[in-house]
Amino acid sequence: MDTNTGTAESTGADSAPLVGPLAGLLVLDLTHVLNGPFGTMMLADLGARVIKIEPPGGGDDTRTYGPFLGDTSLYFAFVNRGKESIVLDLKAEADRAVFLDMVRRADVLAENFRPGVMARLGFAYEDLARINPRLVYASSSGFGQTGPLAAAPAYDTIIQAMSGLMSMTGFPEGPPTRVGTSLSDLLGGLHMFAGIAAALYARERTGRGTHVDVSMFDATLAFLEHGAMEFTATGHALGRIGNRHPFLAPFDLYACADGHIAICCGNDHLFGALCAVLGRPELSDDPRFRDNSSRVAHVDALKAELETDLARRPAQHWLEAIHAAGVPVGPLLDVTQALSQPQVAARNMLVEAGGIAMPGTPLKMAGYPDPHVRAGAPGLDADGARLRREFAGMGKPGEAP
Amino acid sequence: MDTNTGTAESTGADSAPLVGPLAGLLVLDLTHVLNGPFGTMMLADLGARVIKIEPPGGGDDTRTYGPFLGDTSLYFAFVNRGKESIVLDLKAEADRAVFLDMVRRADVLAENFRPGVMARLGFAYEDLARINPRLVYASSSGFGQTGPLAAAPAYDTIIQAMSGLMSMTGFPEGPPTRVGTSLSDLLGGLHMFAGIAAALYARERTGRGTHVDVSMFDATLAFLEHGAMEFTATGHALGRIGNRHPFLAPFDLYACADGHIAICCGNDHLFGALCAVLGRPELSDDPRFRDNSSRVAHVDALKAELETDLARRPAQHWLEAIHAAGVPVGPLLDVTQALSQPQVAARNMLVEAGGIAMPGTPLKMAGYPDPHVRAGAPGLDADGARLRREFAGMGKPGEAP
Repeated sequence: MDTNTGTAESTGADSAPLVGPLAGLLVLDLTHVLNGPFGTMMLADLGARVIKIEPPGGGDDTRTYGPFLGDTSLYFAFVNRGKESIVLDLKAEADRAVFLDMVRRADVLAENFRPGVMARLGFAYEDLARINPRLVYASSSGFGQTGPLAAAPAYDTIIQAMSGLMSMTGFPEGPPTRVGTSLSDLLGGLHMFAGIAAALYARERTGRGTHVDVSMFDATLAFLEHGAMEFTATGHALGRIGNRHPFLAPFDLYACADGHIAICCGNDHLFGALCAVLGRPELSDDPRFRDNSSRVAHVDALKAELETDLARRPAQHWLEAIHAAGVPVGPLLDVTQALSQPQVAARNMLVEAGGIAMPGTPLKMAGYPDPHVRAGAPGLDADGARLRREFAGMGKPGEAP
Repeated sequence: MDTNTGTAESTGADSAPLVGPLAGLLVLDLTHVLNGPFGTMMLADLGARVIKIEPPGGGDDTRTYGPFLGDTSLYFAFVNRGKESIVLDLKAEADRAVFLDMVRRADVLAENFRPGVMARLGFAYEDLARINPRLVYASSSGFGQTGPLAAAPAYDTIIQAMSGLMSMTGFPEGPPTRVGTSLSDLLGGLHMFAGIAAALYARERTGRGTHVDVSMFDATLAFLEHGAMEFTATGHALGRIGNRHPFLAPFDLYACADGHIAICCGNDHLFGALCAVLGRPELSDDPRFRDNSSRVAHVDALKAELETDLARRPAQHWLEAIHAAGVPVGPLLDVTQALSQPQVAARNMLVEAGGIAMPGTPLKMAGYPDPHVRAGAPGLDADGARLRREFAGMGKPGEAP
């Protein structure tokens, strides 16, 4: 693997563009808040030129969202690194001309307005494909561009609730539980990125762009896994099962003297090794625990037995001993501990963008840079004057990017 | 949007290949269990030809995993639809020749072995790039191909624990909570798909393939959102906050007489509208609730007030009334209810593959088919004899697919 992790290749918005796998692409980014910007940030991370087009009156709302570092909104900074910014009034004739010149030369347009908004501006896919048939036009929305809920307002919490995901997360005796991150928003953005990349490949073969239509709702449904399997197998909903695995045991989070560890035994051999480390070899002969299906049937009793032993020593002791026995194990960490692990630095998963520490890109590719120091998020209209000169409304229809 | 949702285009593994955006691509799929197969299924969904190469002695372990529908493992079926299957012993000379002939003609190779396994077989990226420089070689693993944890065993529960995600999910007074789906596994697979698609685009421009190196760990870190922001803002970990939003209120799940609904008020105007619907207009003048920051400061009192009113009527009543007032709202649904919504059918998000109902693809693209009836997952070695004739070890290095 010759990915150049940890190498500083870019130090600010004005430095030379990265030579990433998406270098040379021009992206018009009309997205705002979270899901769209997350997807277009991935395009910028891989070297595309991303121009964020913001509305008059303050731009993207998240510029005012906390948490803050000094005057800087981290919410905005975390999903807009490496982009340029221009304020355009898409209802004003002069700005529409600038925008249409951009469209003629662009490879990708991304938007996450409520379905219908772009059409009312005269910028539906069909409108823009007419002046640039190679355009990959991506729409990310709550429920998608079609169907009875297309126009419904969608926030992450509503999508998590309506997709069934909340009903599956949490403990049998506890309430349905939201994933502690805006999962459906981020899944919408990641699918948008993936769809754009696939559509760009297809465009190279066919010469034609397309309209990529992704939604937070669809993206979350695709992630239901066991919940959807149970629906197909039985027609019933899978109840909440806390942190354990539906079909394997022990496969859960367990309390030690001073914290929790995750232990995952996928077979009898590993369970035997675990019992030996705990000094309880007889447990693997206990008829309740003799094979995996018995252990699943007695999963609460099994957990009680294991935690009796685990409670005698701190987590660090057990992590080392269980790992040494070849049994899959890992610590429960909070985010501060998680991001401080040497593995995070080794993978360049905490980068500095505009001087701000934030998660890096999970897409590592041999032969392409993965800079540790990256361009930050742009100030509002920071590139406006320069971009207005570059896109002066003089482009010809169909002009190649 | 002219995506042909709901149209039957394919009725079995032997029918004509779909003409998707990835049509014409040949993918060698050495992945197993969950994360890799989920990613390569997305390639098949978009029209790539995916050949699943399985080991002797039963093939992919998940063929024996529950839940079952008749004799069919739904676990296997849900992430292997539309693929072909051949059993190859990659340590036996004759089968290695078949495999290498496939490599010469392939566009993509995907694997999710523990790092080092492919190299020991003589099939590291560098080995295969020598005979096919255009190959996009994708590796998905628990912690990545590099770093001190590269060789550590990783299961979804361990990654959720070590990434900080579990520590952020759940209630302040409750335990850290696993997301009720194998989120880290699926995120690894989705990132693998996204990386492959971006690398294929780059290959069309440069003529060169690459090694895509993604991990479940990196993929989960990229999704930490507020947790990572808090780390950067304060150096401290964000505690668990249940189902509410860290900076907005009311923005949570609320109990009605017979179930829960999600209500999301992002501003004072929406909160006023909500209070009016509840017949409690005076609430929006209460000094505790007058603006968003006051509401966040008194979030528990606010929830108690709202639930007092909501408890008087069933969820369906409130859904209609609150929606009619223009306030974002949605029902809490279990998976059976979620998958039965008309929106799911309208978006073709519950397809039939090999006669089995399962979630469809979230990547909808105008001009490309999105068939409702799809080829199912292959029987073990179902395509072996035909594939052995097709890839007879006679291919020339560098031969185009």
